[in-house]
Amino acid sequence: MEQILGGVCAAKGFTANGIHCGIRKNKDKRDLSLIVSQVPAAAAAVYTANLVKSAPITVTKKNLQNGVARAVICNSGNANTCNADGEEVAEIMCKATADTLGIDASDVIVASTGVIGQRLDPTPIVNGLPELAKGLGDHSDLAAEGIMTTDTTKKEIAFSFSVGGKECRIGGIAKGSGMIHPNLATMLVFITTDCAVSSSMLQKALSADVEDTFNMVSVDGDTSTNDTVAVLANGMAGNALIDKEGEDFDAFRAALKAVTVYLCRCIAGDGEGATKLLECAVCGAKDDKIAKIIAKSVICSSLTKAAMFGADANWGRILCAIGYSGACVDVTKVAVSFRSAKGTIAVCEKGAGIDFSEEIAKEILLESEIEILITLGDGEGKATAWGCDLTYEYVHINGDYRS
Amino acid sequence: MEQILGGVCAAKGFTANGIHCGIRKNKDKRDLSLIVSQVPAAAAAVYTANLVKSAPITVTKKNLQNGVARAVICNSGNANTCNADGEEVAEIMCKATADTLGIDASDVIVASTGVIGQRLDPTPIVNGLPELAKGLGDHSDLAAEGIMTTDTTKKEIAFSFSVGGKECRIGGIAKGSGMIHPNLATMLVFITTDCAVSSSMLQKALSADVEDTFNMVSVDGDTSTNDTVAVLANGMAGNALIDKEGEDFDAFRAALKAVTVYLCRCIAGDGEGATKLLECAVCGAKDDKIAKIIAKSVICSSLTKAAMFGADANWGRILCAIGYSGACVDVTKVAVSFRSAKGTIAVCEKGAGIDFSEEIAKEILLESEIEILITLGDGEGKATAWGCDLTYEYVHINGDYRS
Repeated sequence: MEQILGGVCAAKGFTANGIHCGIRKNKDKRDLSLIVSQVPAAAAAVYTANLVKSAPITVTKKNLQNGVARAVICNSGNANTCNADGEEVAEIMCKATADTLGIDASDVIVASTGVIGQRLDPTPIVNGLPELAKGLGDHSDLAAEGIMTTDTTKKEIAFSFSVGGKECRIGGIAKGSGMIHPNLATMLVFITTDCAVSSSMLQKALSADVEDTFNMVSVDGDTSTNDTVAVLANGMAGNALIDKEGEDFDAFRAALKAVTVYLCRCIAGDGEGATKLLECAVCGAKDDKIAKIIAKSVICSSLTKAAMFGADANWGRILCAIGYSGACVDVTKVAVSFRSAKGTIAVCEKGAGIDFSEEIAKEILLESEIEILITLGDGEGKATAWGCDLTYEYVHINGDYRS
Repeated sequence: MEQILGGVCAAKGFTANGIHCGIRKNKDKRDLSLIVSQVPAAAAAVYTANLVKSAPITVTKKNLQNGVARAVICNSGNANTCNADGEEVAEIMCKATADTLGIDASDVIVASTGVIGQRLDPTPIVNGLPELAKGLGDHSDLAAEGIMTTDTTKKEIAFSFSVGGKECRIGGIAKGSGMIHPNLATMLVFITTDCAVSSSMLQKALSADVEDTFNMVSVDGDTSTNDTVAVLANGMAGNALIDKEGEDFDAFRAALKAVTVYLCRCIAGDGEGATKLLECAVCGAKDDKIAKIIAKSVICSSLTKAAMFGADANWGRILCAIGYSGACVDVTKVAVSFRSAKGTIAVCEKGAGIDFSEEIAKEILLESEIEILITLGDGEGKATAWGCDLTYEYVHINGDYRS
């Protein structure tokens, strides 16, 4: 597997674009993105577990019932959630996209991100589509920009990999937490591949993958109403169709995971107000499920996140988060270390503090990527979760008036 | 029922005191508190659900097995948690208290609050006890100060109430979130009453009460390792012993609840960095359990808490928190209003936004006590949870180096 350029346009037969159509007031901010496959593609998606779901999710679910799609249309600046006419507007977005591209409206994946509960006027989207489609090309970066809200960097990645001797490509773009009118930490991820995979195996790969990747990311513990991860596989690499488990499926899953882990780290590290990416790796748990519960509990602890912001090796907060996680563990066997580019330092063994140099710990924790390593001594279970520190800027972004 | 003065010394036969013994570096801060009953008292307690528990909790649990206690000793400045010699130190605290007062060590409730994982030297406690005991008197306020850490105000209350024609008194002190060396949001509550209640009925009343009170408070979602709520009932009011359910028990429970709700509001409103007390009242749920899940989810949402700090009527975040709470609700029937001393404003009906004046909403939300009112339309279930806003100061307190 090799990292390559091109994002969602790295795979054969995919083009993309992003423009400012007029949903966002700032004309320098793109607010409408389009990704198109030259040929019908197998498609799979996963959505937020929130009972309050965006209207585009309802429409996308319906459109993906046959496991086929050709385009993704996504706006930023408005979440189209909790609106009486939300589904109608999402349908208009699909139809306008389909009409412009000459495809079926039911082959369009639609997504929105932005403020909740404000009606989304589809007019600028409908009016912008001709320009958006005209500019389709090798523009993954523009599409990545068009789905950003308060993200500070665009998030894209691609890899090449081999399936049965054929060279395949997979790439993705993502947006993390933040809005112009700050509202929800919405996550949107769009992935394209030219690998030939049946829609059912694509769904299987994606559903399994997110358990270890996007479901292990937390910026602030608030599950968005709009979260969507969608994958399109158009088969143009020419490999033998992956329609069952086996070596080819494993190769595809590994490539998919390379994309999703990269994007998870991007989303966590660019969480609202974040100055640091936190990665919590738990090992030695009775099973993976227990390891996941603990890793997530630590990554979600406001006290731990604030301590990391302050580069404070306050391991007591980590023990505390393990203790209240709900997982059954023997806390007298827990060991904790911190690791960064500056080195590794052990701070707790057998559930109690050990002597360590606060100076060295501080030097390690002042880095922008911090690993929190937890060993339980109960078995072979392990898991990794990603998050970020809690900062003044998070409060600033989310405490500001919308107006 | 009538509010009276005196805190934990309001009830007959109770005295208290608080001094600086030398655990905290700042000599102006009291760090050791003592509450004593003239006669043996029925005693009951509830403790943190965290698997990582402070050593004093282990010792107190053992001492309360017979349901009798006469004194509470509590230090601030060190949590005595995750220390190899923690239980030994907690036992030393009990023995020194008992020796000073001439009572049994097994009749002492011991508690600690402060930084985790640093050995607690019992010497200043043992040396301070003679002075602490000598000053015992009507000093609930000094005892309330001695258990404070980063609390900005001391928390005490008392009520008089009638049981079978006899005048009884009940009072309590509490500490909320914060430490000198910031660590955990530890909650400690000590309640005294001269009402005659058997220890089993006292435990029953307390265990039921905390479900609706202290278990419905969240400052930052981190469950402390040291949380303890203890009640002493010495029977000196002379009422007929309450040893079963009935009118007298109900009267006692109502008085207990008046104390605990008051202290809950104090703890939430004085949460670390808080500028506002948030009270989330849910009604119309299928049952009380669902109402509780939702009220807690809203009060714990970082995004909602940050919006309240910004006096931003961002009801989408509340819908979002209802949606991810895990409770099964019909989100299309949800209504949300905000209420404060400045009035009430409806912002959401049937799960969608309604027109409202942002100006009036802002005026309402700029108050220091905000009610978030949620109506579900699914039944008769209801619940109330208390929390606070998320502020720059929270990050400041918890992001600072311990050193």
